[in-house]
Amino acid sequence: MDATDQPAPGWTLDEAEFHASGQHHGETIFTIGNGQQCLRGGFEEGYPGERTAGFAHRLWDAVPVFGEELAALPRWWGVQLWAGEQPIRLDTGRIEDYRRSLDLRTGVLSRSYRWQGPDGAAAELSWQRFIDFSRPQLAVIRLTVRALTPLPLRAWAGLSAAVENSGLVHWAPVGQQVSGNRAELAVRTRTSGITLGCVAELSCRVPSGEVEGVGLEQTGEPTLEYRAELARGEELQLTKYVALVPEFEAEQPLVAARELAAQAVHFGWVGLRSSSDAAWAQVWEACDIEIDGDPEAQLAIRFALFQLNIAVPRFTDRASLGAKTLSGLGYRHHVFWDTEIFMLPVFSFTQPELAANLLRYRWHGLDGARRKAAEAGRRGAQFPWESAATGEEVTPRWIPDPDHPGRQVPVLSGDRELHVTADVGYAAWQYWQVTNDQQFLLDYGAELILDGAQFWASAAVAEPDGHYHLRQVIGPDEYHEVVDDNAFTNQLAAWHLHAAGALAAWLAEHQPQHWARLCAELGLDAAELAHWLEVAAGLYVPFEPESGLIEQFAGYFDLDELPEALLQPNRTVSWQRLLGFEEVQRTRAIKQPDVLMLAHLLPELFTAEQLRANQAFYDLRTDHEYGSSLGPAISSVVAARAGEIELAYVHFLRAARTDLADARGNADDGIHGAAAGGLWQAVVFGFAGFELTADGWRTRPRLPHTWRRLAINLTVRGRRERIEIPRP
Amino acid sequence: MDATDQPAPGWTLDEAEFHASGQHHGETIFTIGNGQQCLRGGFEEGYPGERTAGFAHRLWDAVPVFGEELAALPRWWGVQLWAGEQPIRLDTGRIEDYRRSLDLRTGVLSRSYRWQGPDGAAAELSWQRFIDFSRPQLAVIRLTVRALTPLPLRAWAGLSAAVENSGLVHWAPVGQQVSGNRAELAVRTRTSGITLGCVAELSCRVPSGEVEGVGLEQTGEPTLEYRAELARGEELQLTKYVALVPEFEAEQPLVAARELAAQAVHFGWVGLRSSSDAAWAQVWEACDIEIDGDPEAQLAIRFALFQLNIAVPRFTDRASLGAKTLSGLGYRHHVFWDTEIFMLPVFSFTQPELAANLLRYRWHGLDGARRKAAEAGRRGAQFPWESAATGEEVTPRWIPDPDHPGRQVPVLSGDRELHVTADVGYAAWQYWQVTNDQQFLLDYGAELILDGAQFWASAAVAEPDGHYHLRQVIGPDEYHEVVDDNAFTNQLAAWHLHAAGALAAWLAEHQPQHWARLCAELGLDAAELAHWLEVAAGLYVPFEPESGLIEQFAGYFDLDELPEALLQPNRTVSWQRLLGFEEVQRTRAIKQPDVLMLAHLLPELFTAEQLRANQAFYDLRTDHEYGSSLGPAISSVVAARAGEIELAYVHFLRAARTDLADARGNADDGIHGAAAGGLWQAVVFGFAGFELTADGWRTRPRLPHTWRRLAINLTVRGRRERIEIPRP
Repeated sequence: MDATDQPAPGWTLDEAEFHASGQHHGETIFTIGNGQQCLRGGFEEGYPGERTAGFAHRLWDAVPVFGEELAALPRWWGVQLWAGEQPIRLDTGRIEDYRRSLDLRTGVLSRSYRWQGPDGAAAELSWQRFIDFSRPQLAVIRLTVRALTPLPLRAWAGLSAAVENSGLVHWAPVGQQVSGNRAELAVRTRTSGITLGCVAELSCRVPSGEVEGVGLEQTGEPTLEYRAELARGEELQLTKYVALVPEFEAEQPLVAARELAAQAVHFGWVGLRSSSDAAWAQVWEACDIEIDGDPEAQLAIRFALFQLNIAVPRFTDRASLGAKTLSGLGYRHHVFWDTEIFMLPVFSFTQPELAANLLRYRWHGLDGARRKAAEAGRRGAQFPWESAATGEEVTPRWIPDPDHPGRQVPVLSGDRELHVTADVGYAAWQYWQVTNDQQFLLDYGAELILDGAQFWASAAVAEPDGHYHLRQVIGPDEYHEVVDDNAFTNQLAAWHLHAAGALAAWLAEHQPQHWARLCAELGLDAAELAHWLEVAAGLYVPFEPESGLIEQFAGYFDLDELPEALLQPNRTVSWQRLLGFEEVQRTRAIKQPDVLMLAHLLPELFTAEQLRANQAFYDLRTDHEYGSSLGPAISSVVAARAGEIELAYVHFLRAARTDLADARGNADDGIHGAAAGGLWQAVVFGFAGFELTADGWRTRPRLPHTWRRLAINLTVRGRRERIEIPRP
Repeated sequence: MDATDQPAPGWTLDEAEFHASGQHHGETIFTIGNGQQCLRGGFEEGYPGERTAGFAHRLWDAVPVFGEELAALPRWWGVQLWAGEQPIRLDTGRIEDYRRSLDLRTGVLSRSYRWQGPDGAAAELSWQRFIDFSRPQLAVIRLTVRALTPLPLRAWAGLSAAVENSGLVHWAPVGQQVSGNRAELAVRTRTSGITLGCVAELSCRVPSGEVEGVGLEQTGEPTLEYRAELARGEELQLTKYVALVPEFEAEQPLVAARELAAQAVHFGWVGLRSSSDAAWAQVWEACDIEIDGDPEAQLAIRFALFQLNIAVPRFTDRASLGAKTLSGLGYRHHVFWDTEIFMLPVFSFTQPELAANLLRYRWHGLDGARRKAAEAGRRGAQFPWESAATGEEVTPRWIPDPDHPGRQVPVLSGDRELHVTADVGYAAWQYWQVTNDQQFLLDYGAELILDGAQFWASAAVAEPDGHYHLRQVIGPDEYHEVVDDNAFTNQLAAWHLHAAGALAAWLAEHQPQHWARLCAELGLDAAELAHWLEVAAGLYVPFEPESGLIEQFAGYFDLDELPEALLQPNRTVSWQRLLGFEEVQRTRAIKQPDVLMLAHLLPELFTAEQLRANQAFYDLRTDHEYGSSLGPAISSVVAARAGEIELAYVHFLRAARTDLADARGNADDGIHGAAAGGLWQAVVFGFAGFELTADGWRTRPRLPHTWRRLAINLTVRGRRERIEIPRP
């Protein structure tokens, strides 16, 4: 173990016992990666029922009903072991001194245990793996086996195309070879036809020297077999260097992978670690947050940053961050508003070049968004509710009814959850405000904002009451489907139209040539700009002046108050599940608080008093436990702003425990990316009270009472900032 | 090779060359089976891109969009071979003297070739396999390797759960073991939760004696490894006895499989062959057809009978014959009207106990059919257009648009292709007429017929014109979707109502108590029976008295005549594909000739003159090449009846070549069961002119001019008949 591998307090996710019942949760939270590819934390040697899987950006393939999903990577991490004919796994012998730990500083996952088989053979196993943070296509695994009894050891290490995404097989092997200590495999996705070259270089040592591998070719599974008769106390060390190169990144992916793997052998474990660790150090310098006095919060914020940093596309702007990152199959890796509103701000403020990648992904999808708007009879760009390879809408219109096998239920989000278009505009605008990156604005950002404004102006309908309306929409609170004048949607749309107007004015003044070209390309003229402002001013937002309450949507206040049935303690399902899909719509029960979300994004719309009134009203009516996982962090921000620090901390912990403690029972499917991004926002915008100002930034700290010190690393308008907030 | 293994003329399907481009066609036509399970004709040692797969009745599991499909069986047939590190397969060396042949008498598939590897090692391989026709759960494979050079041979033989249905994985391994020469695997379908026990007993011999296997357990793949150093001229013989027992057939499937496999070892290859061959001999005695003078026709009719006999459920009445039998993934093994109208008659006339199985499958599905009728606001039983495990409708309502990935197109057949309900009634009635099986009629058949009649009487709508109508239906000709008064549908419905009326009268007279119970159970009374006859008489069938032509549906004669574009020679796609889905509906181009189908099923509706007129008119307008594969055989029957023997023979050959010559280019997906059944009908009802009469049967032969003799084995009203038709 290197000196840097000593567990560091506040930096290590640790597990001292393995329980099969929690294996999928463990797989999720011990995910490692490098912004190109990730690998869930399952075991090299396998385990019954495991869902160990790796994912890399852009390897989309077709899936029935759900359009597209990332094809789980060929099994590159596998190392099968036998003592004689007895497989060595956690379920095949007596296990002692099990430990798994993830070093968040370096992304190195370590695991060790002592195994004793049914026939008495025993060994100590120690595994380490990392995905190189400085070389997108490279990963390394190292195994040390120490014989505690004489041990006839057999190890198989290679590559396998026999993987699946919840039962669906995406890869077809198209070539393979084993030679020397190298296994090679070329695979192609079955529908999208994307080729991936995979090469593993193996190195196996025992005290007497190198062990030579014997080739074991099965179709789609080039494998090397290593055999050694270890005497008691002897060690075998097996190192596996794996290069995965997709066709986007090399003309000859398999040749490129071969070269990269050969190179890796020359650098060796220590050499590769040194550059990877250095790359990690830079990331942490850009984004680390220190919280003194609250070890749980400290670990949780670093874990959230770690998970976002390993999944955010670092090497391409043709991919984005899916709702469940790259850590599982949840939501089929599709991109929702979660990205722009919850996760992207983390990068706008810490590693803006990555935020720019994410926004350019949307820009590349403008064609699809324009087509979606046109098909709905609207102008401009309507971003898809779910986006995958190309930016076309991939929300299914019908899905199997979970309660009635063989039947289908309609899904309305793709047609009705309009706000995502304003969310993309908001993120582009925020990026501009945070970074002052004018080149990005000219090349990409302006189009995202202006084209979305065209959509809103054509979607809102003028009615005889003198207002503009958006009817039959779905807001962030998905317990209420198909509502009129959703406050969040209408206010964001109005904001978007105002912002687009302001941007137009700025461009006309500062970049007149560019503005003229944009006007020509997008078909903009003065009349349309005037219309934007008219729509923005006219969009109806239901509001109760006496109480200061914004009504979540027209008619929300007429609904029944929460039924008693909802208030049962220790429930394990959502209010929607408790009441039923139809019944919950007749109540004020909400999945996530739209109006508080609005207060978070557009605080200027609320006086301090209104903020408190809305916070008090809506917080009580929100299903914080089993509603949306997007909710708690934002509830924390708003509660902190409203001065409810203890409540804010409760919400903060809820977000912090979403994945680490599997608080909602569904972490198996992957990391809740929005909860991770939200957690950062709860610290920065909530407890630190960070705000951008015209000429810089300021904080209005309101720390939880256990926090002795908070330090935040940010980059604002090109300048690295380290914000230190001591306990007052 | 046994004496019986000598190829017999007219009984052997032979292949003297292997072309990778045709491997899936070969897999389909070399399918073997025993009425419980089938195995496609792919190779034990594997081949790149293969779609070798086995299927057994009742192992349904959920599939997205399409409801249910049979889970492809765990890979029980695999035997991997290496010469040193070099895999031995058809693609890994120089191949000479390749031959594959299927003995239709016994269902034994044999294959042999000489292999020379890149390093010079060479061997002769000879494979044989059969699925025991006398033991539903048993199959045997035997391999002989003769070394032509010194040969370090390694063989892996075992079981593997790593199989898929076009990319979908259905099985989860739930237990496995390797001990001695036995590999055991228990698997469970992931959604439906059906357990299957699989056991393989291996026996490996070389000149010096038995070779002992070494266990190689990978998860889901219990395997035995055999190694032998063969000297030049030495032989290794490996025999694999495999038992597959589903949970329906044993309380402890794995234990039962273990016992069966152990038993099989004791019987040995020769013992098992002897009982299996004897069972086959009985089948051929019941159904063989001899055609002298036309070897192609002779082989084709036996091939058709073979394929139907291996796939028809012999051991259960909880399954039926899917449109593509058990030989591939086409139509997801769903059951359509193909079964009752095209395939089931073969069994009613040759092995009526199997026809009864098929009809009882529909009877078990009556609950689903009644629910379907009720959901459409109708009475009685509406059989599903596509049926799978339970008889519930499994036709999808939406499927992915093949031309626009990511979009969906509606499928209307499930709601509109009504005629299947009359088709089931027709088959039940025909079975009764052929067999005189009154017990079946009382226990099952009457309900099938009466319940369907209730459906028709409630589905037909009286209109002011004084007629009853069935509007917006789809007839057998699916080029025209959503038509009014489809002649086939209306006439079959009228026939069904008349038949039900006649059945009611017969029951009232001969089985008054049973009739009283049925009336009570189905809610029948005199008024309803009277209504049936009124609807039957009133159903509108468009007809042109001067020409004698029945109009396929109201308005068909107003459509455009066939466009020139359709008449291009050497096309490879259907008229629908050529013209487009919408455009083809505006023409008289038809996929299969509804009116001629009607003439086939209800010949009494047509005078000889009308038959000739309709045959001449509709035959010309049918897409015989790439329309429905159901069409040609029936076109042959009707042409023969109309005296057009040469045309009848052309259509006969088209049906005969559907799978054997892959005439439509889609035999990869499995045997066209309806074409196979239709071929039998073309010989029996067409060329032999066989008809049931009140007191027996008669023939009106009209043989193709090359046929010197036709002999048909049948069973009519319990009596075995051998009909000899010499050339006059």
